[in-house]
Amino acid sequence: MTTLTGVIPPVCTPLTSEGEVDAGSLTRLVDHLLEGGVDALFVLGSSSEVAYLTDAQRRVVLDTVIGHVGGQVPVLAGVIDMTTPRVLEHAAVAVAVGAAGLVATAPFYTRTHPVEIATHFRTLAARGGLPVYAYDLPVSVHLKLSAELLLELAADGTLAGVKDSSGDDGGLRRLILAREAPFSVLTGSEVTVDSALWMGADGVVPGLGNVDPHGYVRLVRAAAAGDWEEARREQERLVRLFEIVHVAGSRMGGSSAGLGAFKAALHLRGIIDHPATAVPQVPLDDDETGRIGKHLAAAGLL
Amino acid sequence: MTTLTGVIPPVCTPLTSEGEVDAGSLTRLVDHLLEGGVDALFVLGSSSEVAYLTDAQRRVVLDTVIGHVGGQVPVLAGVIDMTTPRVLEHAAVAVAVGAAGLVATAPFYTRTHPVEIATHFRTLAARGGLPVYAYDLPVSVHLKLSAELLLELAADGTLAGVKDSSGDDGGLRRLILAREAPFSVLTGSEVTVDSALWMGADGVVPGLGNVDPHGYVRLVRAAAAGDWEEARREQERLVRLFEIVHVAGSRMGGSSAGLGAFKAALHLRGIIDHPATAVPQVPLDDDETGRIGKHLAAAGLL
Amino acid sequence: MTTLTGVIPPVCTPLTSEGEVDAGSLTRLVDHLLEGGVDALFVLGSSSEVAYLTDAQRRVVLDTVIGHVGGQVPVLAGVIDMTTPRVLEHAAVAVAVGAAGLVATAPFYTRTHPVEIATHFRTLAARGGLPVYAYDLPVSVHLKLSAELLLELAADGTLAGVKDSSGDDGGLRRLILAREAPFSVLTGSEVTVDSALWMGADGVVPGLGNVDPHGYVRLVRAAAAGDWEEARREQERLVRLFEIVHVAGSRMGGSSAGLGAFKAALHLRGIIDHPATAVPQVPLDDDETGRIGKHLAAAGLL
Amino acid sequence: MTTLTGVIPPVCTPLTSEGEVDAGSLTRLVDHLLEGGVDALFVLGSSSEVAYLTDAQRRVVLDTVIGHVGGQVPVLAGVIDMTTPRVLEHAAVAVAVGAAGLVATAPFYTRTHPVEIATHFRTLAARGGLPVYAYDLPVSVHLKLSAELLLELAADGTLAGVKDSSGDDGGLRRLILAREAPFSVLTGSEVTVDSALWMGADGVVPGLGNVDPHGYVRLVRAAAAGDWEEARREQERLVRLFEIVHVAGSRMGGSSAGLGAFKAALHLRGIIDHPATAVPQVPLDDDETGRIGKHLAAAGLL
Repeated sequence: MTTLTGVIPPVCTPLTSEGEVDAGSLTRLVDHLLEGGVDALFVLGSSSEVAYLTDAQRRVVLDTVIGHVGGQVPVLAGVIDMTTPRVLEHAAVAVAVGAAGLVATAPFYTRTHPVEIATHFRTLAARGGLPVYAYDLPVSVHLKLSAELLLELAADGTLAGVKDSSGDDGGLRRLILAREAPFSVLTGSEVTVDSALWMGADGVVPGLGNVDPHGYVRLVRAAAAGDWEEARREQERLVRLFEIVHVAGSRMGGSSAGLGAFKAALHLRGIIDHPATAVPQVPLDDDETGRIGKHLAAAGLL
Repeated sequence: MTTLTGVIPPVCTPLTSEGEVDAGSLTRLVDHLLEGGVDALFVLGSSSEVAYLTDAQRRVVLDTVIGHVGGQVPVLAGVIDMTTPRVLEHAAVAVAVGAAGLVATAPFYTRTHPVEIATHFRTLAARGGLPVYAYDLPVSVHLKLSAELLLELAADGTLAGVKDSSGDDGGLRRLILAREAPFSVLTGSEVTVDSALWMGADGVVPGLGNVDPHGYVRLVRAAAAGDWEEARREQERLVRLFEIVHVAGSRMGGSSAGLGAFKAALHLRGIIDHPATAVPQVPLDDDETGRIGKHLAAAGLL
Repeated sequence: MTTLTGVIPPVCTPLTSEGEVDAGSLTRLVDHLLEGGVDALFVLGSSSEVAYLTDAQRRVVLDTVIGHVGGQVPVLAGVIDMTTPRVLEHAAVAVAVGAAGLVATAPFYTRTHPVEIATHFRTLAARGGLPVYAYDLPVSVHLKLSAELLLELAADGTLAGVKDSSGDDGGLRRLILAREAPFSVLTGSEVTVDSALWMGADGVVPGLGNVDPHGYVRLVRAAAAGDWEEARREQERLVRLFEIVHVAGSRMGGSSAGLGAFKAALHLRGIIDHPATAVPQVPLDDDETGRIGKHLAAAGLL
Repeated sequence: MTTLTGVIPPVCTPLTSEGEVDAGSLTRLVDHLLEGGVDALFVLGSSSEVAYLTDAQRRVVLDTVIGHVGGQVPVLAGVIDMTTPRVLEHAAVAVAVGAAGLVATAPFYTRTHPVEIATHFRTLAARGGLPVYAYDLPVSVHLKLSAELLLELAADGTLAGVKDSSGDDGGLRRLILAREAPFSVLTGSEVTVDSALWMGADGVVPGLGNVDPHGYVRLVRAAAAGDWEEARREQERLVRLFEIVHVAGSRMGGSSAGLGAFKAALHLRGIIDHPATAVPQVPLDDDETGRIGKHLAAAGLL
């Protein structure tokens, strides 16, 4: 596999009002993303509500997306679970359905250690059967993958890349400048994509890319063409659009507020049938949804 | 189900050197615990390495233990996973195999909220099919269940009890004094059992109880008989024995060090065949195992 | 100095409505505490609002209290500041006014390290001119003093004791059982005093002791006399009284809520003239004060 | 005062081997910075070891720097302390010596609340006598100033700006795009200066600017001239130079490692007489200093 680059949205998982995967909406969402020009897809990440999906539902998502994409772009599969043995089970499914790579966090729930994190990724690389991307998500995993560890695991071929959702762009840059050998550095930020690309990042995995894939594709293409002013213009429009994740304030958790906003926007845009999020998330109310509509209009998306 | 009381060890999961559940060792461990006089068993908790077991392995543990116990004591089942839908899947298995109750944490990995935590437990109580015990484990879940929330969920019948592994004995006491209606307050501490019982706790779920169930049973019986001096004497012996979890220092994670110590001790005592812990934990070395042997000898267990 | 034992309340600092130290109220508070039978006083701790007092105000507190006490009981002085050089300045004042000991935290605000914490306490012991007590307060200092470090600093004579306000009674017990040589272990808990004494703690430094010193003195004396039932009865009454720190809920910070409650109670009991807390804390409102009055009445204090 | 812009280094505080302020070295350092073309100076920030300086030493620093600068550039003064009353004392000194503005964090050590943080800054603005800049430093203060709060305090004129050392460049950008009225957004990052300027930041406060002010001035001037390629080239050189803060690894705290590296580099460059840092920081050893020398050479600074 060559180095992963470009726009790789973490695909939301549309649900029915009963909480089941809405495969029809999911394929429409995939069409929306492909039509937007994205370079790859990442399913079963945090934006996919992976933490809320049963194993059977995860399988439905993989089958639906990979089947529908039919090889047009690579599809990466999140294998999010607490420790190596459980992650390996998810990896086996991902291999069976034809995923192009695995995205895995460090162990969580357990009290772990850098030595164990290294063993975790090395075991996954040895037995997982696909290229492994580290998912650096301190808000969920409660630890930050250090540049030292990532560089060590890049150098020995364990990792094919990292999705950095830590928000620490200084750390991202340190990694970019210090890496040797092929190693994809992907930012998970919605709002510093132009600057991450400026620093040398290879690609972007923005949850907001579900709502406006065209915007992120224009942004990345402008940057690739050296038109940084245009890239910034797109980025600033998207920064303002990203305010949708704040409309719910503090009356719910950050996952409910963010994923609920993405789904409400997709529903308002007519792409998915239901804005439902999984239990026990709090649904957005009509006022919040109305404000999301205004943000969409201001961004030229309604 | 009546209020749960007494000594309820969180049963370790012996593994083969290939990382599979060692059912023979597991039944010997169960015999060791029953022979020690424990009042119930808790399988698939943190001390069981639940975070490392695949779903198939979890099922083997449930079948093995519940089958072997044959109704002599209640067996609680941990249903440890990230959110409600995944926890409900584990609950269905627990019901199918005949568990007596479910032990569940708040959601983790996601960014959650008290309102969502309440919905989580209420959904589990409504659909799980068994009494629900909250598992308060901030070191893993990265949040503390507040006394206010627990009391609300006790009052409305959602929760049958709590296993408090937060280490906050002041909070434990606040809960004990404020609860109304039947609600089991169980301490997860190894080292403040006499004082927790003194405060009115109903029972104890000590990981170290795998190694020395007789000690914890003597402790609890002495307390029940009002012989607090004897309870303290036992407790202080067990506090000293609990130093085994510190022999590995900081060269590995807390889970490796603690679970590795329990298993090394069980192996040294001849109860389980292998001291192996699951990947990617770091094994204890000979020196560390030797020091654990000395602690066992000092505690009169070798 | 012999080992410090018994009830050592951290003395609140009454303020005028202009935010100055109210020396008249402070001496009445000291009389209230001495009349209650306390064994020593601790001024300029967190309950004294030390973080809010200017250096001049700290000096007024020291002069007022030490002058008024006139040697009847030892007076410990908090020397709370970010690092060693600033702490040493406070220590020099404490020596000058006749304090009996220094109470110091680990460095805070800076990013520190166990080696530096050891140097900090050793420097303070060498140059501070008085016995040094470590103040373990993770909620403020954002680190926990490890048992290993405290035992090392106890063994070499650096520390005369520790005020443990970590809430981790398991850690407290580990320290009690492992210490050698004279080393005072004092709990900062309001609600686990009977159990801490049961474990072997030497004394208690409860903020709530400002409001009800007689209660804590009765508790400690009952425990010393072996009447643990009576100790528990007092403790449980005090646990219920301690609910006053929760009446303000989450509309203000924990310091405002807790210190405001202590001061409101002291004002309602007629001991201090104003319930004012320092800027920028939020004052309690009439409803909250009313509820504190009810708690006082229920505890037999109004 | 007009909006603060450009390079505003947080001036290190050279110390003698006895731990006193080395005024001769300090004035040479100031000359080095002015000669480098910086736009303003910030004294008594974290990079100045403000947490380690006594009040008398802080005064020496202010007098030395402001006296020596003689109005050539504005000098901002850190007023770092736990709460409002103590911060106001430092502000009075800053006014007396002719500082151009105050830099203050949220309250720390106490358990605070957004309402209290707003009162803190409003009180400081009302009584401090100088423009107030918020210092957002979660690594020290253990909270992040929210964009909502900063924007509210910008809109009502409380704050003249913010020094954002949170490392969260997405949050920085949100602030830049949402602010109205004059409000200086300054990044405290050493390594994302080009991108912060690209996003619209007004200036930079880099600790590494002590070592290489010319580099940061070239970077900022290139950006101002629209020569972003040149800005990036400078920035990448400085990212590599910034590795000096990592040479000490984990054998000391982050403050020792970072401030020790800056001072070692200034000493190696012949600007200050001693590389000493304040007690209880750990000094760098010869090997570490040697590696810093190599980094300086690679950056063209030796």
